Amino acid sequence: MTVLFDDPAAFADEALDGFVAANRSHVARVDGGVVRSTEMTPGQVAVVIGGGSGHYPAFAGLVGPGLAAGSACGNMFASPAAGQVYRVAKASQVGGGVLLSYGNYAGDVLHFGQAQQRLNAEGIETRTVLVTDDIASAPIETIELRRGIAGDLTVFKVAGAAAEAGLDLDEVERLARKANHHTRTLGVAFAGCTLPGADAPLFTVPDGQMSLGLGIHGEPGISEHPMPTASELARLLVDKLLADKPEDAGSRVAVIVNGLGTVKYDELFLLYGKIEKLLLAADLEIVEPECGELVTSLDMSGVSLTLFWLDDELATWWSAPADTPAFRKGTADARPQRDAAELTEATAEAVQAGTPAAVALGRSAIAALESIRATVEEHEQALGDLDAIAGDGDHGIGMRRGIEGAVAAARESDGESVQTVLTRAGEAWSEKAGGTSGALWGTAVITVGLTLGNRESYDAQDAARAVQAFADSITGLGKAELGDKTMVDALLPFAETFAAQIAGGDPVSSFDAAARAATTAAEATAELRPRKGRARPLAEKSVGHADPGAISFGLITTALAESFRPGRS
Amino acid sequence: MTVLFDDPAAFADEALDGFVAANRSHVARVDGGVVRSTEMTPGQVAVVIGGGSGHYPAFAGLVGPGLAAGSACGNMFASPAAGQVYRVAKASQVGGGVLLSYGNYAGDVLHFGQAQQRLNAEGIETRTVLVTDDIASAPIETIELRRGIAGDLTVFKVAGAAAEAGLDLDEVERLARKANHHTRTLGVAFAGCTLPGADAPLFTVPDGQMSLGLGIHGEPGISEHPMPTASELARLLVDKLLADKPEDAGSRVAVIVNGLGTVKYDELFLLYGKIEKLLLAADLEIVEPECGELVTSLDMSGVSLTLFWLDDELATWWSAPADTPAFRKGTADARPQRDAAELTEATAEAVQAGTPAAVALGRSAIAALESIRATVEEHEQALGDLDAIAGDGDHGIGMRRGIEGAVAAARESDGESVQTVLTRAGEAWSEKAGGTSGALWGTAVITVGLTLGNRESYDAQDAARAVQAFADSITGLGKAELGDKTMVDALLPFAETFAAQIAGGDPVSSFDAAARAATTAAEATAELRPRKGRARPLAEKSVGHADPGAISFGLITTALAESFRPGRS
Repeated sequence: MTVLFDDPAAFADEALDGFVAANRSHVARVDGGVVRSTEMTPGQVAVVIGGGSGHYPAFAGLVGPGLAAGSACGNMFASPAAGQVYRVAKASQVGGGVLLSYGNYAGDVLHFGQAQQRLNAEGIETRTVLVTDDIASAPIETIELRRGIAGDLTVFKVAGAAAEAGLDLDEVERLARKANHHTRTLGVAFAGCTLPGADAPLFTVPDGQMSLGLGIHGEPGISEHPMPTASELARLLVDKLLADKPEDAGSRVAVIVNGLGTVKYDELFLLYGKIEKLLLAADLEIVEPECGELVTSLDMSGVSLTLFWLDDELATWWSAPADTPAFRKGTADARPQRDAAELTEATAEAVQAGTPAAVALGRSAIAALESIRATVEEHEQALGDLDAIAGDGDHGIGMRRGIEGAVAAARESDGESVQTVLTRAGEAWSEKAGGTSGALWGTAVITVGLTLGNRESYDAQDAARAVQAFADSITGLGKAELGDKTMVDALLPFAETFAAQIAGGDPVSSFDAAARAATTAAEATAELRPRKGRARPLAEKSVGHADPGAISFGLITTALAESFRPGRS
Repeated sequence: MTVLFDDPAAFADEALDGFVAANRSHVARVDGGVVRSTEMTPGQVAVVIGGGSGHYPAFAGLVGPGLAAGSACGNMFASPAAGQVYRVAKASQVGGGVLLSYGNYAGDVLHFGQAQQRLNAEGIETRTVLVTDDIASAPIETIELRRGIAGDLTVFKVAGAAAEAGLDLDEVERLARKANHHTRTLGVAFAGCTLPGADAPLFTVPDGQMSLGLGIHGEPGISEHPMPTASELARLLVDKLLADKPEDAGSRVAVIVNGLGTVKYDELFLLYGKIEKLLLAADLEIVEPECGELVTSLDMSGVSLTLFWLDDELATWWSAPADTPAFRKGTADARPQRDAAELTEATAEAVQAGTPAAVALGRSAIAALESIRATVEEHEQALGDLDAIAGDGDHGIGMRRGIEGAVAAARESDGESVQTVLTRAGEAWSEKAGGTSGALWGTAVITVGLTLGNRESYDAQDAARAVQAFADSITGLGKAELGDKTMVDALLPFAETFAAQIAGGDPVSSFDAAARAATTAAEATAELRPRKGRARPLAEKSVGHADPGAISFGLITTALAESFRPGRS
C-alpha cells in the first residue's frame, strides 16, 4: 500500500524533487529527469537510462560517476516522453555521444527511439542498447522480445564504467550489448503493488500462491505455484536460469538477488545464502554479488535472481568503482560539482530569431497543422468507431489530443521558423496523445522540422527529403511492414508516389497525387488481416474493416494537399 | 508479510549467514554476530553495536571502516545474549578499548551490561553509550528513559568516525554521548509487521489510522490520528521535533527520513522534500541528509524523522567517510582484509590446563551449582505460584532453565579450574533462562568466576571479594535499591552480614549467617510495595506476599551454605 502522498497525480514529480533534494551531492534536476551533479570528462560517452517511476533505485538512483550520466524519469510505471529523454540526454552529453539504455517495453522503445532520432539529427551521435534479461517473457529463440527487469543494472553498470574510463561510443555500445547478452533474470511475485491513491492493488496473486515470471508491472508470468520454502525457491530460480545460460557462458557469475519492495533484507539475505550454495555446488565462481533492492515495483512482494555471466572484460567493468545515490562500489574519485546554470542551459534549445521570410514559412507550418486539426476533429468520432471494432476505440480521441497539443505549441511558437515550430509541435503531439500513434506522429513531425531546418525558402528537393524523412521515421520507430495492416500501408504508397512525381518539380500536385494514393491504399487495408499494432489481438473481427491508423493518415494527407493548393495558404 | 524462510526458528541465523556471504568484502561472521573483515588500526577504539535482528541495516549492515567494528546479532527483535556481545567485542577490539552502543531497551541493557562487566574484568576497558532518541517514549524530563530508534545511526556514526580517526576511548565516549544528546526522532506507523512463520502481524494499527510514536516492536505510542497527507505528516513531525530540541541546539541539522519497511523510496523522497521546505523555512541549515531504510522493522509500514543538531565537531564526524554494506559516505581508504583464522582465535577463550589442585576446586564449583539446581527444582512450583500473584508466573521455570543450563555447561568444563567453570556456567545461565533474573544471575556467576580466577587455593579475603563482586554485579546491572521489593532486598543484607562475619576468618560460618540474614530479609519483603521489577504493574496485589526473586535468593544461599559445611564437599 502506497500511503504517503498529497495529490496522487503529482506523486512521481514530487518524489523526484525530494529525491534530488536528498541527494544533491550526486544528482541535479533537469527538465525531464536528473543528471549527474558532478563534472564529467569532456568527450566521455554519456550513458542515459530511464523509464517509468516506481522502480527506485531504478532509474534515478543509478546516476553518478561510473554509472549513468542521466536518467529520464516518466510518470508512475509509464515511459518518459520523448522530449524528456531528449532534454536529459542533451544535459548529459559532453561531446562523446550518447548511449541510451533501458528495459525493452513498447512505450520506452517508442519514446527513447524518437529522442534518438532527434539527437542524431542534431549531430549528437546516439545509439541504443535494450535490456532483455527476463527469461520468463519470451523463449530463448526470440530472446530479443524479452523484457528488461533487474538485469538493467548489469548493462548500465558495464556501460557506465566503460564510459567513465573513456572508451568511445563504439566500445561502450559493444560492451553494453555484450553485457545484456550475458544477463539472465527470473522473478517471482507473491502480491501486487498499489499505486498512490488507488484503493486496490494494480494486480493480485492468489493467497498462498507464487507467480513465476510475473513482470514488474504485473505482466503475465509462466506459471503459478504454491508458496515454496526459501530453499525450494532458490532451487527453482537457479535451475531455470542455468538451463537458459548463454551458449558462450564461462564459470564466473555476478549474482543479483533483488527485492521488489516488501520482501525485506533478512529474507533476501537468507535466500542469497541458499542460492550461493547451489551455485557453488554447480562449480561456479561468484564475483561481487549484490543483494538488496535494485529494481523495485513500489510495494510489490516479490524477488528476482539475476545471473550475469562474466568473462575477463565484463568482470573488469562489473567490478569498477561507481558512486551513485543507491549503488556504490569501490572507491570512486571525488569529483567537483557541475555548474547548475550550465545544466539548465544545456536542456534549453538554441533558438535563433527568424528572418521575416523564415517566420512567414513558420506561419505556413502552423497553418498546415491547423488544417490537420480540422480534419481530425471532423472525423474523430468515425475514427473512434472504426477503432472500436477490433481495438480499444481510442484512436479518434488520441489523434485529437495529439494534434490539439501540436497546434497549441505551434501557435506559441508564432514568430519562429519552420524547424522550431515543427519540433515543438511534434514534441507536444507525442506528449499529449500518448500511446503508439502519438509517438509515431510526434516523432515524424519533429523529423520533418529537423530536415527542413530554419530557412528562408525550400525547393522541391527539400520537400522530397522531408517526405522521405517522415516515412523513414515512422517505419524506423514502428517497425511495421507493408501488409501488417497499419498506417504504414498508406504511408509507403504515399511516399513512393510523392518521390515519383516530385521529379516533375511541382510539390503541390505531387502531394495531391500522393494523398490520393494514400487514401486508396488506406481503404484497401479492409482486406488485410492484422499482423502488428492495435488490431492484432482481434484479427478476425478486423477483416472487412480498414485500419483506423491508415485511414487517419489518408485523411490528414488529403487535408494537407488541400491546404497547399494555391490560394489556400 | 515475511514470506521467505525454511524453518522460522532458524530465520535470524540463516539470514545472518546469507548477509555475510553477500558482503564478505565488508564483514566476517564470528560467534555471536559479525565484525569488520578489514584490518583495523592497532590501538583504535572498537565501537560495538547490536540488538535484535529484523531491523536491517541496523545493526550488522552498519559494520565497516568509519562506523562499527562489530555487531552482536540477537534473534528476531530479541537482544543478543551477553555471551554473544562479549565474543563479538573480543573479536572486534584491537587494544584501544570498547565502546558498546545500542538502543535503550531493558533486554539489551542487561545483556550488553553483563558483557561490559566481563570485558572490564578481563582488562578490556569497556564503556557504554545508550541511544535514547525516541521523543515519543518518555517526556523530556526523563530523557534517559527514552528508547533508541533511528537515531542509532547518528550516535554510531559519530563514535565510529571518531574511533577510526584514532581518538581515545574517553573522547569516543564523550562524542557518542554528545551525539545522543543532540539526536531526536519521532516515528509513525500505519501497519504492523509479521514475524517469519507467523499468521498474523505482531501488532496492528486500525485501517485508515496512523499511530504516532509507535515503537519499532509495537511499543505503545502517543496518540492515533486519521491518515494524513504527506504535507500534514511532514508538518506534524517537524513541529514536534522542533518543540523538543536540545537546549543548546544551533541552526545546523542532519536530517534522517527513515522507512520502517514498506513505505517505499518514492514516498520517503516525497516526504523528505516536504520536510526540507519546512526546515528551511525555520531558518535551519541542512547538512548531508539521509533518506532511505536505515533502522527497519521487517515489513512494518511506518516512517520516522530524525533531527541531529550539529555543532562543528559533530558535523565533522557526521560527514566523515564510512564504508559499510548498507551505509557509505565519502571516500574511505581501501583496507586489506583481516586474517579469518585470527578472528576465530579472538573469540576463543584462552584456557590454560589446570593443575590438579585447581581442577579439584573447579569440581567444588560444579558441586555448588548442583546444590543450587537441587533447591531450585524443589521449589520451582512454589516460586512460580508466588510470582503469579502479581507477575507473570515464570520465575520458577526461568530459574530452573537457567540453573540447568549452568550445571550442564559446568559439567562440560569438568577438568577446568574455577574461573573457567563459573564463567561458562554463568553464560549458559543467562542464555537459557532469558529475562531479567537470568541475566542478573548469569552475570553475577561470571563475575564471581572472574574475581576468583583459575587458582589452586582461595582464602577468606578471596571469598569476601567474590561475595562483594557478586552483589555489585547485581546492583550495577539491575539498578534496584533497597526497598524496591526485588532480589536486592535479600542480597544486600546477605552481603553486609558476610562482610561483617568474614573478618573472623571463617568463610563457612560467615556464609551460613549471611544466608540466614538473606532468608529473613526475603520473607520481610511481603510488607513492601514494589517500585521496580516484575511486580510493579500490579503493586497492590503484591502487598502481603514476598518477592519471588528475593525468596529464590534466600533458598539458593541457604542451599550453598549447606553444601559448604564440612563433610559435604
